[in-house]
Amino acid sequence: MTATIKLGELAEFLGATLRGSPEKEITGLATLQEAGPAQLSFLANPQYRKYLVDSRAAAVLLKAADAEGFAGEALVVDDPYLAYARVSHLFDPKPKACGGTHPSAVIADDAQVDPTASIGAFAVIESGARIAAGVTVGAHCFIGARCEIGADGWLAPRVTLYHDVRIGERVVIQSGAVIGGEGFGFANAKGIWNKIAQVGGVVIGDDVEIGVNTAVDRGALADTVIGNGVKLDNQIQIAHNVQIGDHTAMAACVGISGSTRIGKHCMLAGGVGLVGHIDICDNVFITGMTMVTHSITEPGAYSSGTAMQPAAEWRKSAARLRQLDDMARRLKQLEKRVGDVTPGGNASSEG
Amino acid sequence: MTATIKLGELAEFLGATLRGSPEKEITGLATLQEAGPAQLSFLANPQYRKYLVDSRAAAVLLKAADAEGFAGEALVVDDPYLAYARVSHLFDPKPKACGGTHPSAVIADDAQVDPTASIGAFAVIESGARIAAGVTVGAHCFIGARCEIGADGWLAPRVTLYHDVRIGERVVIQSGAVIGGEGFGFANAKGIWNKIAQVGGVVIGDDVEIGVNTAVDRGALADTVIGNGVKLDNQIQIAHNVQIGDHTAMAACVGISGSTRIGKHCMLAGGVGLVGHIDICDNVFITGMTMVTHSITEPGAYSSGTAMQPAAEWRKSAARLRQLDDMARRLKQLEKRVGDVTPGGNASSEG
Amino acid sequence: MTATIKLGELAEFLGATLRGSPEKEITGLATLQEAGPAQLSFLANPQYRKYLVDSRAAAVLLKAADAEGFAGEALVVDDPYLAYARVSHLFDPKPKACGGTHPSAVIADDAQVDPTASIGAFAVIESGARIAAGVTVGAHCFIGARCEIGADGWLAPRVTLYHDVRIGERVVIQSGAVIGGEGFGFANAKGIWNKIAQVGGVVIGDDVEIGVNTAVDRGALADTVIGNGVKLDNQIQIAHNVQIGDHTAMAACVGISGSTRIGKHCMLAGGVGLVGHIDICDNVFITGMTMVTHSITEPGAYSSGTAMQPAAEWRKSAARLRQLDDMARRLKQLEKRVGDVTPGGNASSEG
Repeated sequence: MTATIKLGELAEFLGATLRGSPEKEITGLATLQEAGPAQLSFLANPQYRKYLVDSRAAAVLLKAADAEGFAGEALVVDDPYLAYARVSHLFDPKPKACGGTHPSAVIADDAQVDPTASIGAFAVIESGARIAAGVTVGAHCFIGARCEIGADGWLAPRVTLYHDVRIGERVVIQSGAVIGGEGFGFANAKGIWNKIAQVGGVVIGDDVEIGVNTAVDRGALADTVIGNGVKLDNQIQIAHNVQIGDHTAMAACVGISGSTRIGKHCMLAGGVGLVGHIDICDNVFITGMTMVTHSITEPGAYSSGTAMQPAAEWRKSAARLRQLDDMARRLKQLEKRVGDVTPGGNASSEG
Repeated sequence: MTATIKLGELAEFLGATLRGSPEKEITGLATLQEAGPAQLSFLANPQYRKYLVDSRAAAVLLKAADAEGFAGEALVVDDPYLAYARVSHLFDPKPKACGGTHPSAVIADDAQVDPTASIGAFAVIESGARIAAGVTVGAHCFIGARCEIGADGWLAPRVTLYHDVRIGERVVIQSGAVIGGEGFGFANAKGIWNKIAQVGGVVIGDDVEIGVNTAVDRGALADTVIGNGVKLDNQIQIAHNVQIGDHTAMAACVGISGSTRIGKHCMLAGGVGLVGHIDICDNVFITGMTMVTHSITEPGAYSSGTAMQPAAEWRKSAARLRQLDDMARRLKQLEKRVGDVTPGGNASSEG
Repeated sequence: MTATIKLGELAEFLGATLRGSPEKEITGLATLQEAGPAQLSFLANPQYRKYLVDSRAAAVLLKAADAEGFAGEALVVDDPYLAYARVSHLFDPKPKACGGTHPSAVIADDAQVDPTASIGAFAVIESGARIAAGVTVGAHCFIGARCEIGADGWLAPRVTLYHDVRIGERVVIQSGAVIGGEGFGFANAKGIWNKIAQVGGVVIGDDVEIGVNTAVDRGALADTVIGNGVKLDNQIQIAHNVQIGDHTAMAACVGISGSTRIGKHCMLAGGVGLVGHIDICDNVFITGMTMVTHSITEPGAYSSGTAMQPAAEWRKSAARLRQLDDMARRLKQLEKRVGDVTPGGNASSEG
């Protein structure tokens, strides 16, 4: 299950400058601190440079500048972290799909499954679905009617696609993810919620990754749209008709409400929540657990919430916070009165 | 997969006043801006009235007041949004279950499945379960021992019901939802958590909807109870022995802790969290991501959290917030001292 | 489905002092208020003592001190809540697995399944997996290559283990949980996210419980580690390379970011979020929905967030909060000016 690759082969694969023996055999990857004598390591973050000299690693991916003072074997590259990302797949113990369709799978007569695709045990593929070349559909997956999965996609076991979900090439979907569920659409009449059929679909671009137990709802009328290169972590909620721009990444537990549009190259940290029907421009970074209640029109970093305190102090802060409006009025009044007494007048900067 | 329905038939279905040709054929639904010449649209929100005149829609669902100045074809109704909800199901491309039991399903000998129910591929139905008329059980569903599913229910693929879950009529459950999981009950003895068997069940009323990957735990002793007409969005957590009143709706990512009771006609926005063992009265609206730590006894809207700011400003606010108790004491002292000096005395409104 | 057990047998099982008839038959458990004449109840929380006198329960688990003034039948124990936990399993209506392997299960030739284990319908067990004695693998479970499940584990229907997940003894995993998913690891190069293979595994100790739809990601290089006796509620996210110390418990909807380490005997209430790469020491309690952005080095209770208010008041507080930095500066200025005027000088305690 573990590959053995020669250092010279890795140098060639990466286009790296090799400092050391091309015949040395590498069997895996590890951090500088944990690497053994047959493992490759990397130095990307300068704060780990201190571990370089004592590392037992067989060789280290590093920049030319870091290689200068280092006596060990090295693969010198421009971007060690990216190089590590690229070689990591060579040492991945993840089982490869064996190709073909498991005899237990249930596939509709008019579904089109490329002969190079792999379909796992107990998978269900419904009418009119199209599975392109090189796709892996894991065990227990459900692929709804008329879905399309582009070339070289990888669906972990137990992924559900409702009907009319169109997925680009090289898309990875982790276990438990549900794409195309019926969004939360109801018309309230005299206190009773009447369901609105969700007749739109979902369109997912190329090179997207969708995490464990993440939900992407289908559109109410038009489609929900996930751009190229978008990366969604686990336990995320994407409501109906959300649009996510190319190469935006979201950490776990983010929730995006209906019809909100997010630009390109944004980053949302864990637990962020966005209300519906707002626009977030390109290149926005939102820190963890921020509550976003209005559109963002300028690139940059945004936050909400309060800093953690010992619970006893926090209770005082929380109580004082409820007096804040009163405090502000008292402060203003005091400024006015002091202004009446002292020569400087009212110094308030309040508009 | 798309229906074609004449305008006259839609008028009759809705009890609407038709202004236009009853023979005109409608093939789908779209917004005013996106509708093509064979699509029906609707005007419910006044802010979209500006799109009415230029809409290419075949016809528009609207109120009599909005119909007056409109030259196009129209279906005049009292509540256009409700009318849209009702007709939306006529154009839903969702595949209908074909009826009968898929040969791969595993059904206990003593389970009762109505002959008009549809049971999907690889479904498992355990001993003593009862599936009523017109129910759809999707592929990969697991229906535990002694569960009951009332007439015309619709379970998406891959829904799990543990044992002893009783569900009313016309209930919709989306993929990945788990009903009846074992709640988080442990007795701590000398630092070790000892599991408490969760011997209660779950009772779900009529016309309930439960979203993707939502969890409703079984009761510890008595049952967890979801009232009639309750709508739960995706990724929600309902802990053991929670009770939810009729026609209450919750948006995605809400978490309700154990034994909390929520009234009727409440609305919880996304990401709201409630502690356990509290009561929320009827007609309460809680805004997104609010932390609810005590009971609510008056109808109305409730909130917590802080507004989003650019991260640099937020860091200042967060730091100042930790000084708030100190600021409050200093303000009071200042008021006292100014009161000693100026004629007006202490103006504090603090109790 | 319900057991009938004599009071004398229960006393013997618990090592309790019986006050009443050993022949009395008990058929179930209920609270003091709801118990009928064949049900056992318990008094653990002093605030429920008022319900004791009128309880119709067949017998009550209670402490010697509470037994004194009580005329009814009782089982006197040191810790009534723990005693309730222990007897609860005797009355659990949860179906027992019937043993053996369901004929529909797909098991790799080289997987090792103990003959006393139970494997449910449509389960998939991959190459090299090892299932120990007394383990229940529910229907629709997926057990990846080389996974190990220790003796007497219980996996609900539809649990997914990716490859190389090693689980201790007596571990309970609820439906929809996914262990070993690929963590969120990407190297950004010129705005494009490049996936990093997640080559580590997951190691889970003995007596762990993992809730409905909870996700525990595999390690990026080394393993993700869950200690002995850890209890994770539903909808939790555990990112790659997190380490959780023994007997720590987390309520629902908690999110832990990558490489964070949590000590032993900690308690995280619902909705808490932790950033990555921090350390939480032993015996820390974090209240609900707290945002933890730095390490905690002292045991104790910690909180963040603001208290809920009626929405109209909250809007004022939220607006004032954005003025807080300005208010702090004005207060300081005022103190200075008042200090110039009044005899007492500047009373600020600000550092």
